[in-house]
Amino acid sequence: MNTQLQGKVVCVALNDAEQLQSMRATFEQAPYKALPTQPVLYFKPHNTWNHDHLPIDIPNNEQLVVGASVALIIGAPCCRVKADSALDYVGSVALCHDFSLPETSYYRPDIKGKCLDNSATISQAVMLSDIGDLSQKAVTTYVNGEQVQHFPLTRLERSAEQLIELISHIMTLDKGDVIAIGFAGERSHLVAGDVVHSKLGEAVELENQVKGEAV
Amino acid sequence: MNTQLQGKVVCVALNDAEQLQSMRATFEQAPYKALPTQPVLYFKPHNTWNHDHLPIDIPNNEQLVVGASVALIIGAPCCRVKADSALDYVGSVALCHDFSLPETSYYRPDIKGKCLDNSATISQAVMLSDIGDLSQKAVTTYVNGEQVQHFPLTRLERSAEQLIELISHIMTLDKGDVIAIGFAGERSHLVAGDVVHSKLGEAVELENQVKGEAV
Repeated sequence: MNTQLQGKVVCVALNDAEQLQSMRATFEQAPYKALPTQPVLYFKPHNTWNHDHLPIDIPNNEQLVVGASVALIIGAPCCRVKADSALDYVGSVALCHDFSLPETSYYRPDIKGKCLDNSATISQAVMLSDIGDLSQKAVTTYVNGEQVQHFPLTRLERSAEQLIELISHIMTLDKGDVIAIGFAGERSHLVAGDVVHSKLGEAVELENQVKGEAV
Repeated sequence: MNTQLQGKVVCVALNDAEQLQSMRATFEQAPYKALPTQPVLYFKPHNTWNHDHLPIDIPNNEQLVVGASVALIIGAPCCRVKADSALDYVGSVALCHDFSLPETSYYRPDIKGKCLDNSATISQAVMLSDIGDLSQKAVTTYVNGEQVQHFPLTRLERSAEQLIELISHIMTLDKGDVIAIGFAGERSHLVAGDVVHSKLGEAVELENQVKGEAV
């Protein structure tokens, strides 16, 4: 359990512009019929909160996948703000690993798949000012040392600032709340023993291992 | 903000057996194609938590509806338990008003509609043993003194015990977590000034008013 966290962890799905474009044909068919017009959000509740270097269980007879995202940690209450002042409400920046079951529905991530115990790990945070221009950074993820995802934040369909504006119009964001702003489209499949390591530039790192012996 | 709460508030949608039966024809068509085989869950996050007798804002240019549910407050950590011991993990029982925007999708309640600030009010709780046999009680809701919903808990598609078994297999329930076990199928539409009052038997009451002058 991550006891530094309180409040809520909101994740943004489908925020990789390349993924959206590559899936345009799929999304224009039933049941979706159109690309999403609003950010697709899901929560990682209290039982999911976990730390850097702590392990994640692989659920019984299920497949486990992982994605990595920048996690914005809100520093001041934030209600219906505009994009141009949105970063003023960000206290610090971390990395988040979202461990989940593979997607069965893109537009409405399902509760069972997203709410595994200990499945949202959050790294040590740094000040936003220590990162430099966030929009020019990239999140890179390695499994057992091999690069599996590289997500330049220029590929975000909606920027951090746009997301804070949109989400803060849906619900007040409180100090300590976390927004995971977007994941590379392809999640990586994991097996017992896998080590997942992500980096945001050189400033932030996060590592977690899937429990169990490597097979 | 309800500071007694911590952890998570999990609500169960579509748990009125009469509603499910009356909508069977709808649910057997696209995009659903079948009645749900698992409980349909949604979260009311931190920004929604609110108290008895505190007001709820009507959102700008939106419609507001309300439902009432028994709220089970978990008394001890609860992971993968069986229905026959499930009530041992319930510390107390309250009422919950879920204020939301009208549904646009039955199977996956949407984040925007369910996460309005202050939209989950929880009453004072009583011990489960003070309620008697919960399954034989009813939740009754009045708007401005007129009865709008009456939901005998015999109409629950899945009982409190079954839900605790199913949900605790998806995610660990911690002390203080809340499960709103089911709402009457028809939500009630509200306007500014409306007073919503609900009762669970004679033991538990909850009242909230929609902000603004009655029109």
